[in-house]
Amino acid sequence: MSFVGELRVDWATSLSLVGTVLKALTAPLVGTALVALWYREPLVPFLATAVLTLAAGLALERLDRDDLGLREGFLMVALTWLAIAVVGAVPFLIAGDGNLATPVNALFESTSGVTTTGATVVENFDAHGRSVHLWRSLLQWMGGLGILVIAVAVLSQLSIGGAQLMETESQTQDVNKLTPSIEETARLLGWLYAGLTGLMVATWLTLGAVGLGPEVTLYDAVAHAFTAVSTAGFSPRAESLGAFSPAVQWATIPFMFLGATNFVLLYHLTQGNPSRLADSDEFRFYLAVVLGLTGLTAAFLVASDQFTRIEQVARHSLFQVVSILTTTGYATVDFVDWSPAAKHMLFLAMFSGGMAGSTTCSIKTLRWLVVVKSFRRDLFREIHPDAIRPVRLSGQVIDEAVVRDVYAYVLLSGIIFVLLTVFVVTDAARAGPGIGEFEAMGASAATFLNIGPAFGDAGPYGDYAWFPATTKVAFIVLMWVGRIEIIPVLVLLTPAFWRS
Amino acid sequence: MSFVGELRVDWATSLSLVGTVLKALTAPLVGTALVALWYREPLVPFLATAVLTLAAGLALERLDRDDLGLREGFLMVALTWLAIAVVGAVPFLIAGDGNLATPVNALFESTSGVTTTGATVVENFDAHGRSVHLWRSLLQWMGGLGILVIAVAVLSQLSIGGAQLMETESQTQDVNKLTPSIEETARLLGWLYAGLTGLMVATWLTLGAVGLGPEVTLYDAVAHAFTAVSTAGFSPRAESLGAFSPAVQWATIPFMFLGATNFVLLYHLTQGNPSRLADSDEFRFYLAVVLGLTGLTAAFLVASDQFTRIEQVARHSLFQVVSILTTTGYATVDFVDWSPAAKHMLFLAMFSGGMAGSTTCSIKTLRWLVVVKSFRRDLFREIHPDAIRPVRLSGQVIDEAVVRDVYAYVLLSGIIFVLLTVFVVTDAARAGPGIGEFEAMGASAATFLNIGPAFGDAGPYGDYAWFPATTKVAFIVLMWVGRIEIIPVLVLLTPAFWRS
Ligand SMILES: [K+]
Ligand SMILES: [K+]
Repeated sequence: MSFVGELRVDWATSLSLVGTVLKALTAPLVGTALVALWYREPLVPFLATAVLTLAAGLALERLDRDDLGLREGFLMVALTWLAIAVVGAVPFLIAGDGNLATPVNALFESTSGVTTTGATVVENFDAHGRSVHLWRSLLQWMGGLGILVIAVAVLSQLSIGGAQLMETESQTQDVNKLTPSIEETARLLGWLYAGLTGLMVATWLTLGAVGLGPEVTLYDAVAHAFTAVSTAGFSPRAESLGAFSPAVQWATIPFMFLGATNFVLLYHLTQGNPSRLADSDEFRFYLAVVLGLTGLTAAFLVASDQFTRIEQVARHSLFQVVSILTTTGYATVDFVDWSPAAKHMLFLAMFSGGMAGSTTCSIKTLRWLVVVKSFRRDLFREIHPDAIRPVRLSGQVIDEAVVRDVYAYVLLSGIIFVLLTVFVVTDAARAGPGIGEFEAMGASAATFLNIGPAFGDAGPYGDYAWFPATTKVAFIVLMWVGRIEIIPVLVLLTPAFWRS
Repeated sequence: MSFVGELRVDWATSLSLVGTVLKALTAPLVGTALVALWYREPLVPFLATAVLTLAAGLALERLDRDDLGLREGFLMVALTWLAIAVVGAVPFLIAGDGNLATPVNALFESTSGVTTTGATVVENFDAHGRSVHLWRSLLQWMGGLGILVIAVAVLSQLSIGGAQLMETESQTQDVNKLTPSIEETARLLGWLYAGLTGLMVATWLTLGAVGLGPEVTLYDAVAHAFTAVSTAGFSPRAESLGAFSPAVQWATIPFMFLGATNFVLLYHLTQGNPSRLADSDEFRFYLAVVLGLTGLTAAFLVASDQFTRIEQVARHSLFQVVSILTTTGYATVDFVDWSPAAKHMLFLAMFSGGMAGSTTCSIKTLRWLVVVKSFRRDLFREIHPDAIRPVRLSGQVIDEAVVRDVYAYVLLSGIIFVLLTVFVVTDAARAGPGIGEFEAMGASAATFLNIGPAFGDAGPYGDYAWFPATTKVAFIVLMWVGRIEIIPVLVLLTPAFWRS
């Protein structure tokens, strides 16, 4: 099957690979059941789902598996996230607690989990057991690892809006060799990811032990480590990070920041080679955007007398900018109450995202850096039309076709965001008293760009339960579309994809 | 001076050409003074300004004039619009009527005029004489003609975001030969433009004569013909087109539509050759977007029971979509009261604009068509990476560098729009009780994209006088930036432009 473009799309291979992923879901489900046992909570939601996913996984895996072609790669990526979202919703339905036990709400929460979005429909955090909250966090940790592997090993080779520019080791373009490359890369990334998670657990526990975070429990440390390193943002606490001491809040900032840093560069850092990180144009740009937006936010917070102490201004502005920009979505305060100017800095941060090749979502600093560099080059060429001046990234010349792909991706993201906002406004007016434009824009960006909390009633201390079911379904679809970088879904909608 | 890129920018040549334009402004000023004489209104505002502009024009024109280089072209385009805006504001200041007689308001109204925006700071329409209202209309008519000449003869050769794709006769790339080409093209376009204007005056007067538009006077017909064909939108009536009969409203739609149609294609139409228009991909796309958005708007108006008769739904939806999409900005009703869904269709229409090579503003259907075609091509190539499939426009292959320029232009427009919105919200919160997000977005789009009316208090029956002075200054700058297609201004901000 070497002429992959010429034949009918190979459903069996894609589904067989999805089956392998589903089978692997059994382990975290059984693990969560053990935690439920420890806390004397119902085991059935997790054990029943484990049996279900094992059966489905085994059945699908038995389908004929061939080499993975280009179209099968797109199909597999799209189906995997859908399948985990569906399986992930089952424990919420079986548990039957609070308002999670409706099909739409369960699927919303599960999709928000596995896409590392972190938008929640939970209204009453106490209505759910610790095992259910852990399952929410675990979905995000798995989703973060999954996107890391997909981003570094798969998307970078499918030329998704310039994703091939990200700094990786293997620049092989032979898509038929994806499978071994995935396994090798996944192992490396997995260790780094697990190591960062463990480091955060240790950090939180240490702060608790020395009296700087008296409210920290082992459960808190694990649940939050799962959702910080994955830049995902679910918290078992209704107050999110506001439930913890300033020291714990400060200590969490680096983990969100690192979760949104290119993991290949982090790997080099652990190998005693910090120069690749320091020399990366994208890393320096990422750092500059974070610090720039933090400075502006701090200035607007000072101007609006939001806080009395300078430590508060520094902590909340840095924490919220890092949280939103890295697409984590934790909150230390209810930033819905901030001044319009400060809120709009967070709104702008939503569209940045962290570095490519990490767990971050949104547009990513890689693409924005290419856009900025290309804009500058284009202006220069308006004056010197005959000058040859390619766009360079960390010294490497970027192909012009890739620059065009990056523009297309950023523009497409913007268009989808605008159309989603129009839908949200229209649907809210149809269903009830309507919604403010900024609230609709915030919720659209926060779901499609996989950030989580937005503004107004969908703020960090609010929830998404009150949206019309139709809007929630749109959010579910767009969390999925946004997480797998749009193109794999759009490709499925083209006639050329299905033509044999 | 053939190595134009190598030498210091030639201010003298640019300013000398601006001087010629300013000198020519004397004629419309004297013409308006004659109208003032007829209506027994003060002549001084126009005669004094005529003396001023004649003196300034003669002085500037005497500067050493050399061949027009690339950088001098950018400088001239940017300075010409600025200079006319400043001169155009003087009659408002001298007349001293209503709220136009402050420097910021006078400059806002004049810039809104010459950029064919149509956003007004006039609160009380009766406070101003007929001659002042005519001057508002005349500024727009001149601005429309100016942009037509600049767009077809100059911008299309400066590669402004793919502007060179527009269908024109002369595809010469020799910028040193611009001047004769401008004169020849300007004469042709001028006759067509004047002919369309005359046809609209005749149409309105005929409707008045046969009793279908009893309220139409010669003054109304002329003042509105000036601002319809230029897709500009000022009206001497506070109710805009709502002051006229349904027949007059229907009859005005084609003139806005034609004002936003490529004038080179219109020229072929007048030569008995309609096939170039009918075969134009862009024209068909333009028509499809107009009809599609009209259908959606009509459906939302029906759903919200906004009107009782089907003729009202058809007329108001078609009129408003054409008015906003072509960037004219007339209103037949206060669409601020429409349902959120219907209003958002108009909001989307703002970002379309009509065809390149016309008087329209905004992003233009040419660029959107390239974006749509390129998106489709890119998706096809995700599945068939080795396929060769260029983007074609009316059968012609488009260079990939031009596709990239189009993406860059659309993206840049979106970024400027977002940043302007953030500024408007922040400035409104600083200065007073703040502003709604949709109102801020509407006003930002309506000024930067040169449309005119927006939503909320800046709606078609509202005005822009109530914005903080700082916001009004930002609007003035961005009406100018938007009208001359952004790039000429950004180029002036690059160090490379000024380097000798
Ligand atoms: K998130
Ligand atoms: K206009």
